[in-house]
Amino acid sequence: MQDDLLRVEAELLRVVAATDDFLTEVAGHLVSAGGKRVRPGFCIAAAAVHDFEGSAAPIEVIRGGCAVELVHIGSLYHDDVIDGATTRRGVKSINAKWGNLRAILAGDYLLGRASELAAALGTEVAGLLATTITELCTGQILELESVHNADRTFEQYQRSISGKTSSLLATSCRIGGIVAGLPRPTIDALSEFGRAYGMAFQIVDDILDVVATDEQLGKPAGNDLLEGIYTLPVIYSLGDPGVSAELRSLLHSGISVEERDRARELTRLGGGVELAVEAAEAWSDRAGAALSGLPDTTGAAALRAAGHHLLGRLNAVR
Amino acid sequence: MQDDLLRVEAELLRVVAATDDFLTEVAGHLVSAGGKRVRPGFCIAAAAVHDFEGSAAPIEVIRGGCAVELVHIGSLYHDDVIDGATTRRGVKSINAKWGNLRAILAGDYLLGRASELAAALGTEVAGLLATTITELCTGQILELESVHNADRTFEQYQRSISGKTSSLLATSCRIGGIVAGLPRPTIDALSEFGRAYGMAFQIVDDILDVVATDEQLGKPAGNDLLEGIYTLPVIYSLGDPGVSAELRSLLHSGISVEERDRARELTRLGGGVELAVEAAEAWSDRAGAALSGLPDTTGAAALRAAGHHLLGRLNAVR
Repeated sequence: MQDDLLRVEAELLRVVAATDDFLTEVAGHLVSAGGKRVRPGFCIAAAAVHDFEGSAAPIEVIRGGCAVELVHIGSLYHDDVIDGATTRRGVKSINAKWGNLRAILAGDYLLGRASELAAALGTEVAGLLATTITELCTGQILELESVHNADRTFEQYQRSISGKTSSLLATSCRIGGIVAGLPRPTIDALSEFGRAYGMAFQIVDDILDVVATDEQLGKPAGNDLLEGIYTLPVIYSLGDPGVSAELRSLLHSGISVEERDRARELTRLGGGVELAVEAAEAWSDRAGAALSGLPDTTGAAALRAAGHHLLGRLNAVR
Repeated sequence: MQDDLLRVEAELLRVVAATDDFLTEVAGHLVSAGGKRVRPGFCIAAAAVHDFEGSAAPIEVIRGGCAVELVHIGSLYHDDVIDGATTRRGVKSINAKWGNLRAILAGDYLLGRASELAAALGTEVAGLLATTITELCTGQILELESVHNADRTFEQYQRSISGKTSSLLATSCRIGGIVAGLPRPTIDALSEFGRAYGMAFQIVDDILDVVATDEQLGKPAGNDLLEGIYTLPVIYSLGDPGVSAELRSLLHSGISVEERDRARELTRLGGGVELAVEAAEAWSDRAGAALSGLPDTTGAAALRAAGHHLLGRLNAVR
């Protein structure tokens, strides 16, 4: 599978190459800056749950993985404009380097290239990827709508992360299954794994933002509170009478770093972190259960390992 | 065909409806604000060059028209962010009303919905629409790259407008032909018409920005020069020794309204407007020629009428 991921890199660079030098450079910026390629990895592993064990993934699987990764990168370009981010994966973000205008267009360009790849894989994949793009936007819009809303509900949070994170991971797995021609029940199980994994993944990410140090996280922690994004641990602790009033009083725009740190402390004290960990574990269990009927192949093992790794991140900082 | 355009409106509203109220509102903003629906009109007319004369267009044709229109509107949302536009089609632009962040996401959402519609029409249409999105971005990037460049060449200008305007009009016609199941040579002729029409359309638009009054244009004229976008009439007049030096001296960022008006005057004096009109006429002839082999149907007549109308706009202000 390592070899297949290298093929993804080569294919990504081939796909983003444009007739215009500048666009090739801009579009290739984050592609060449790398990343964990979680989504292409899922696509390849999903395709490998029945077939081609030991042999290379069919090129269609590599291309399916590239399509989901390009949607991911394209949406990161737009995210960075939205957040005013200055770095991404350790390099200057597109918008910081070339301005918002080019970041928007380069993101659109990558979405277009992703849709081209998907179209070549058939109408089902093309439709699925397109729907996923709309779900991503919906999740992000829902998040924007709830900024600085201390009354954000569990359901609102869940709908938002389902769209912004979970949908693309589910689609990565599903496309792998579809292009590998796996049986429908297997494809559905793979989707369900990706969806549940995505939910757990985002909840873990949100917990880490509350509990981890900058060093543990490798980037500034506590950012969500500064940006007014109140995630699951905070939502849960707002329901705890012991901390609720003080915590709520801190949740306003223009929160200072001291207030932010006190809010993180209160979120821990209110028990929200523990409850959020339970929610992440429940999603993780669900992801594992989705794979239970699958044969014991390299692909299934890779997906299971990803699930375990997820909770491992959490244990390292608790 | 008027009835078919009403069906386009209904379908557009159906397609942009989201589970989220806000997104439905934002996405529907420019859809409900209307527009000439040139692209769906071309799609419907193209589909009608052989078939269904007098009867309603098949629903696939309506959906193909909606797909191209949604790409158009989505790209307008992003354009408005790029330009910092405050109005569009007489109503507040998305970015002015709800901020850049939502305008970016709403644009992405519409591109996703457009790709969904295209996927349901088959892999050829899905691939074509995706490629067109990348061409649109490329054209816009090329334009951005040439801002305030008084050495912009005819070829650079042509490549830019080919991507930003002509490609989507060609695709509108092509999709109409594909989904109507027309013969390949007819489909190619329709594409060629759309491409040539698109070139003429943009050149006319660029000429009007130089020669028309605000009243004639229905919006502020002379905007391109303010934004540093040097279009065909200006490029041609920069080649005229009589005005070249003075015109060039005016082409800088921070150009005043007086300088702008002098630059418009010099562009006329240098003969660039006449040369650009000739270029538009040549593209318009090419568009007409592309239709010459087609039967004399309502669809073909509608496309021809669009071509004539184009040059009519020009004659009204010369």
